[in-house]
Amino acid sequence: GIHYLSQHCSERYEMIGQLLKEEEHDLVLLQEVWSESDYLFLKKTLAHSHPYTHYFKSGVIGSGLAVFSKHKILDTFLYRYSINGYPYMAHHGDWFGGKAVGMVILDICDLTVHAYVTHLHAEYCREKDAYLPHRVVQAWELLHFIRHTSGGADLVILGGDLNMHPRDLGTRLLLAYTGLRDSYTEAERFEGCEEGITLIAENPFINKKELEPFENGIRIDYILFKGLSRVSVKCESLSTTTGSVPGKPFPYSDHEALSGVLLLRSEEGGGDRPQRCSAEPDPGLVDMVNEARTEVKVGLHSAERMRGTVARMGMMGLALLLVELVIALVPWLAHSTEHAFPRASFYLLGALSFATLLLTALLYILYSTQVKTLQGAEDQMRLAVTGLQERLQKHSQTQPVEQGRVQGEPTSTPANSP
Amino acid sequence: GIHYLSQHCSERYEMIGQLLKEEEHDLVLLQEVWSESDYLFLKKTLAHSHPYTHYFKSGVIGSGLAVFSKHKILDTFLYRYSINGYPYMAHHGDWFGGKAVGMVILDICDLTVHAYVTHLHAEYCREKDAYLPHRVVQAWELLHFIRHTSGGADLVILGGDLNMHPRDLGTRLLLAYTGLRDSYTEAERFEGCEEGITLIAENPFINKKELEPFENGIRIDYILFKGLSRVSVKCESLSTTTGSVPGKPFPYSDHEALSGVLLLRSEEGGGDRPQRCSAEPDPGLVDMVNEARTEVKVGLHSAERMRGTVARMGMMGLALLLVELVIALVPWLAHSTEHAFPRASFYLLGALSFATLLLTALLYILYSTQVKTLQGAEDQMRLAVTGLQERLQKHSQTQPVEQGRVQGEPTSTPANSP
Repeated sequence: GIHYLSQHCSERYEMIGQLLKEEEHDLVLLQEVWSESDYLFLKKTLAHSHPYTHYFKSGVIGSGLAVFSKHKILDTFLYRYSINGYPYMAHHGDWFGGKAVGMVILDICDLTVHAYVTHLHAEYCREKDAYLPHRVVQAWELLHFIRHTSGGADLVILGGDLNMHPRDLGTRLLLAYTGLRDSYTEAERFEGCEEGITLIAENPFINKKELEPFENGIRIDYILFKGLSRVSVKCESLSTTTGSVPGKPFPYSDHEALSGVLLLRSEEGGGDRPQRCSAEPDPGLVDMVNEARTEVKVGLHSAERMRGTVARMGMMGLALLLVELVIALVPWLAHSTEHAFPRASFYLLGALSFATLLLTALLYILYSTQVKTLQGAEDQMRLAVTGLQERLQKHSQTQPVEQGRVQGEPTSTPANSP
Repeated sequence: GIHYLSQHCSERYEMIGQLLKEEEHDLVLLQEVWSESDYLFLKKTLAHSHPYTHYFKSGVIGSGLAVFSKHKILDTFLYRYSINGYPYMAHHGDWFGGKAVGMVILDICDLTVHAYVTHLHAEYCREKDAYLPHRVVQAWELLHFIRHTSGGADLVILGGDLNMHPRDLGTRLLLAYTGLRDSYTEAERFEGCEEGITLIAENPFINKKELEPFENGIRIDYILFKGLSRVSVKCESLSTTTGSVPGKPFPYSDHEALSGVLLLRSEEGGGDRPQRCSAEPDPGLVDMVNEARTEVKVGLHSAERMRGTVARMGMMGLALLLVELVIALVPWLAHSTEHAFPRASFYLLGALSFATLLLTALLYILYSTQVKTLQGAEDQMRLAVTGLQERLQKHSQTQPVEQGRVQGEPTSTPANSP
């Protein structure tokens, strides 16, 4: 919702507020609430149904992330992704949004629930996606943020616009690393758009070209969940809105909304909390992380190349400035007050060289930061691969012994039985 | 260590490498290793004594944070502070450093150790510290990062240059919120500079003016620690380097190095892991967080004021551009090819208006981001205060009952005894 740019912005916020008030969800995770006034409007509308709320602020415009809850919010924390597009791609706007993942810690019937809401960098062209390394790094940071901050949770929920298809690298990494389960594949009942798609071709607010070659639409919004230690969770039902809204000429949003019902069951003593070192790692994970490393390296090479180009442009600006100096010095050295070079061109050239220097300096800073960030992600991924390989090796060494033990049991049982 | 700017940079890295190799610490947490080549030099020097290492990359130059360990590094994670000075204060350089807190997860004798290394924004003038709100927000983010990511740890260690005195607001908040203990006040034996100071007046690399009014020096570097669940920790000894190095004409660094010995004891079944909701909150914490809110509000007002100034400057640039347009249109409207206005001044004015617009646009983005960040921190602090007050209220209501129970025990004991 961007005022003046998005169509029927205020009317749609009114519709959304009304819907949320009626449906009375326990927890609402919203993305792209860009304007604080719209957040405040929703806050007012939902004051009785959802007394607890948080709006995550970040970036130039904001993170756009908002949470409304029937249950008390105990704590919040925001992690801003370290890479998020380019400021000069202003028409894409992602850079200005300050993309991030927000965490709220809730107390729901004495269970500690860590709910995450996020919105990753958009995909504008699937064939030639310049932002793929950025999105892979964002997914990588997202999964680590969830892993490291969900230690004390009984239930973890992630809701958001991941801008990734279900089989995309980032989605696979996220699910494999965190153990989160996809409510669409897990739901016992599903009602809504075919194949759970959330970006449908008929939506009047989207650019149909960006959907190609997916004629019907794509599934890029998710509700993911997992229970830890004391809780087992299953997804009873999942639904999406289906485009048109009865009695209204337009839908709520450019994406379809996802709603799910999770059934929680206390499991005293039971624990599916993953053990950091002892559990067998997924052998496919090594390939996945290596695939991510390749993507990050592609991004790194491109950022380094751009930094090089910018540095050369900066040199040109500097050379121009030198030429200016020489031109300025010639009449002075020749003790003449006459300018050999036309004044206007002289000033234009000066302005040009200054503008070039300033612009290249800024771009150099931008690309240097991106190079550092991508290098950092690559380092972390290399460490992860080494760790995974060692654990797999250790596991394959201990595996025969454990298998022997398991196989030995049936024969030893009769001996122990009376 | 900044090459060409810092004196004796390479020699000092050699000295530091030699010292670390000889002293064989389990864990080394370094700050301000700005150049990757210096990190690689240390990595090579310490390859045998400290085979596990990580260098955190962030910002334009880097985070400067490096870890060397005798024990395996299982995982790493970096959190960049959301506010960190101003890019135009290039001589202070903090903005370019990409200040952050790095976490490494180590396996030390089957204990999970979360070690944090950080370097907060420097204080250049204590009397009129424009960066105080930035440092308070950094301390706030640091303490939340530690709280939220140390869930699975047996031992938590934070080492770094906090750029805060022991009684500064940020230090008090950090200790009170995380339960971390200061190795200087806890150490059974201490050897080194008086009062544990780490920035001493005699250091040849520092600007003595910045130390005023603290004649001898200040303590701004810390080793903080706490044991969780299975482990009790005490600090056996702490030491600092004391300026001069025998046989060398200059010290290792502008700060004195801190070394501590921690004694870990397994506590089976014992647990001093803080319970999120049931433990009594420190009543002083509310005042502390309110004090922090005041600082953040001061920063917010200043950022908003600067954003307003910048917006007005931008308007002036726009007005200039309009004047230019009018000047350009006058001869065209008068059907004359002659310029009534001197050409050179016309171009200069044009360049000036463009430069003003570009610069103000950039500054507007910077201040908008800072406003959002400071508002976000203030929101989080307000939530924290409300939560603390509710817990205190609840505790004061349940307190008499609990006291009654405790008081009742001695009288009931004789009845139960045979």
